[in-house]
Amino acid sequence: MSLTHFDKSGQAHMVDVSQKAETAREAVAEGCVVMSPETLMLAEGGAKKGDVMGVARLAGIMGAKRTSDLIPLCHPLPISKVTLDLRPDPELPGIRVTATVRTTGRTGVEMEALTAVSTACLTIYDMLKAAEKGMRIEGIRLMRKSGGKSGNYEATP
Amino acid sequence: MSLTHFDKSGQAHMVDVSQKAETAREAVAEGCVVMSPETLMLAEGGAKKGDVMGVARLAGIMGAKRTSDLIPLCHPLPISKVTLDLRPDPELPGIRVTATVRTTGRTGVEMEALTAVSTACLTIYDMLKAAEKGMRIEGIRLMRKSGGKSGNYEATP
Amino acid sequence: MSLTHFDKSGQAHMVDVSQKAETAREAVAEGCVVMSPETLMLAEGGAKKGDVMGVARLAGIMGAKRTSDLIPLCHPLPISKVTLDLRPDPELPGIRVTATVRTTGRTGVEMEALTAVSTACLTIYDMLKAAEKGMRIEGIRLMRKSGGKSGNYEATP
Amino acid sequence: MSLTHFDKSGQAHMVDVSQKAETAREAVAEGCVVMSPETLMLAEGGAKKGDVMGVARLAGIMGAKRTSDLIPLCHPLPISKVTLDLRPDPELPGIRVTATVRTTGRTGVEMEALTAVSTACLTIYDMLKAAEKGMRIEGIRLMRKSGGKSGNYEATP
Amino acid sequence: MSLTHFDKSGQAHMVDVSQKAETAREAVAEGCVVMSPETLMLAEGGAKKGDVMGVARLAGIMGAKRTSDLIPLCHPLPISKVTLDLRPDPELPGIRVTATVRTTGRTGVEMEALTAVSTACLTIYDMLKAAEKGMRIEGIRLMRKSGGKSGNYEATP
Amino acid sequence: MSLTHFDKSGQAHMVDVSQKAETAREAVAEGCVVMSPETLMLAEGGAKKGDVMGVARLAGIMGAKRTSDLIPLCHPLPISKVTLDLRPDPELPGIRVTATVRTTGRTGVEMEALTAVSTACLTIYDMLKAAEKGMRIEGIRLMRKSGGKSGNYEATP
Repeated sequence: MSLTHFDKSGQAHMVDVSQKAETAREAVAEGCVVMSPETLMLAEGGAKKGDVMGVARLAGIMGAKRTSDLIPLCHPLPISKVTLDLRPDPELPGIRVTATVRTTGRTGVEMEALTAVSTACLTIYDMLKAAEKGMRIEGIRLMRKSGGKSGNYEATP
Repeated sequence: MSLTHFDKSGQAHMVDVSQKAETAREAVAEGCVVMSPETLMLAEGGAKKGDVMGVARLAGIMGAKRTSDLIPLCHPLPISKVTLDLRPDPELPGIRVTATVRTTGRTGVEMEALTAVSTACLTIYDMLKAAEKGMRIEGIRLMRKSGGKSGNYEATP
Repeated sequence: MSLTHFDKSGQAHMVDVSQKAETAREAVAEGCVVMSPETLMLAEGGAKKGDVMGVARLAGIMGAKRTSDLIPLCHPLPISKVTLDLRPDPELPGIRVTATVRTTGRTGVEMEALTAVSTACLTIYDMLKAAEKGMRIEGIRLMRKSGGKSGNYEATP
Repeated sequence: MSLTHFDKSGQAHMVDVSQKAETAREAVAEGCVVMSPETLMLAEGGAKKGDVMGVARLAGIMGAKRTSDLIPLCHPLPISKVTLDLRPDPELPGIRVTATVRTTGRTGVEMEALTAVSTACLTIYDMLKAAEKGMRIEGIRLMRKSGGKSGNYEATP
Repeated sequence: MSLTHFDKSGQAHMVDVSQKAETAREAVAEGCVVMSPETLMLAEGGAKKGDVMGVARLAGIMGAKRTSDLIPLCHPLPISKVTLDLRPDPELPGIRVTATVRTTGRTGVEMEALTAVSTACLTIYDMLKAAEKGMRIEGIRLMRKSGGKSGNYEATP
Repeated sequence: MSLTHFDKSGQAHMVDVSQKAETAREAVAEGCVVMSPETLMLAEGGAKKGDVMGVARLAGIMGAKRTSDLIPLCHPLPISKVTLDLRPDPELPGIRVTATVRTTGRTGVEMEALTAVSTACLTIYDMLKAAEKGMRIEGIRLMRKSGGKSGNYEATP
């Protein structure tokens, strides 16, 4: 098997997708930030203390729009939807982040969904790092995708 | 304890660092992309197959420069060094990424180092996703930092 | 009434427009910078003194292209036309700015037109601020829009 | 009087500030979005309805960091503080926006404060435009600045 | 003859392409960096010494995606392919760069191809400048284009 | 000799400049766009026809500010001056572009000056390409630099 992002002589290129059809595509990615129960309480402080999750959600949405700026071989494409769901999970303990991205285009939006999750997680870290530098970003992965020639994908649980 | 990125009424702001001294600061962060042994072999294919790690390294360096564009409350600061070390680890199996960032400034470069790691990991995923969509980005964390009023930090192993 | 940029639980999202048709859309916005008659004379100095309005026009055109980078919940979309008209108005006294933006897309270009006007006005302020710091940017508003499901809009005079 | 952003033959340039001292500088700017009382009520809906002012505040902070990207002849400079205050004013009726920016640098941060206000106002418009297209952005101006050779400035009330 | 980027009164604008058809378009551009034989040997050092051409190739691909950010009157458009070919030419002596860009859109991708070549050449200069400051970037030009109303173009040899 | 942008094992990195002193630095670069006498006449049409050189000058100034975004291993640094001189040269025939950039920093501004020239030349091409696709960008090179440990450089004529 060879990698699509490289040509026959191993040189990186942005793959030609001009022959692909413009189809509806969706991708869902998730990840989490693991922290101490005390830090999680701070993160859940609410509007009075500061809306950590609201800031991270917005950063994730804006991050999705910067995907092709950040990932060298990624095609620019007009995103038609981005949502981020952030929820505290006392069992981690930490915050779980899920991003859903849609487009009508010639390539998928897996990287946009993963970049949204990643940017939201980094932003959570930034806002809470004064309380706990040992937080970890874990389990960033694609949950599912649909649309495009390669068909649907569903992560194993 | 309250969060420095929010004021007394809970509104987000970019913290005032104008009274802080410009000091030498360094941060080291790490993370990894976990994949199947077969995908790891593809990633190690070498120059003939395509330099996956070279592309990811460059993406990480460029990503570090975009940190304050991506993280809403992060101060812009002139980075004076970025290095990324990417190495295949058959025990994961996968690729381990370590980023080191330096500046002489009024705030630390923890977020720059974490953003470099995160961008490199996303780029690795992008280049290998045709082979394996189930890869996971794991364990992004700060390893150590030095400089600044809050002093040094060393992650527990 | 609820706000389209937020979901049922009040979380911000980039609205799903993937089901909307790609239609021709146009938006016209205006605004002005109010200044003293003396400053206006400087602004009208002509090519020999410096083309204040030429620089502001270009800034407005380029600003329109950055709209989705600046406005968090704004969809990126391929602009197909931007024009800015800047004209001195001795009755203000000041400079009136009008921007017209077109696209063929799934969302309107109101924000692009308003961002173009806003960026041009800020640039005018920047170039003339050494002469008069008390200038004011006033009356930025949508004049009309056409295309899309919500139909046409025409500002009352 | 001639304009500092143009040379003797009227050509635009980015002024040489290399001989200026690095001093502490601050600028405060304000502006507002005027809307109907009904729209203002929507904007004040609170966390359950959607945090319009929280999103606009964040957009303003991030906009301040993009100032030198947007304003052609503006020097890039490392901002050390950005705060935005947004408050509903039933007498407008509408939302008043005030931005405070600090740096230690060779040029002032007037444009950064004005760009922060402007971006926050555009974002408010974006989030409420489904309810009222006739909103207007008014009165964007510099309130005061300090630091630098040109000394302090205080707007007349 | 008049210039399409200016209106009848000589004001710059982004030309209206909304009436143009979306067609397949391709452009090929080339250029080179001329250097001493010794510097060329350094550039060809291979993976052990540092992959100068690999870094420049990636910079060119990413540069193509920034074209409409850099060129004021250029339309943003979704690129569907970018490849860069870099090859040492002992007869120059130096490195020849060729870029091929494709899109399905309303305007051509000549500027994207030229920007890719230009960015790759600048990056080559950056990486080799410690060895030879006297290098020159030469002969950046459009080789051919196809698609669009203005038809095909082929450079004379 | 080895290349400073790569470490001992040939991996690209952003060189550590944190130990370098902040000194005044200046760089001057030049280049030109070669065209037919007829195209040059169009470019010189003046304000009535459209200010080709004014637009290109502004693009060059803004391009200088994007240098570290475009050139992967380039340090971000706060530019303190950018000027571009564009002059028609009937002997080429074409337009000569010279850029001068200054900073007080830890690295030189050669790349900023070269990027300014390059962006201005691309913009000239863009504005005149409807008249002549065969234009060529030629002779982009560093004319001189001062400041920093490596001392002064003056190009041979």
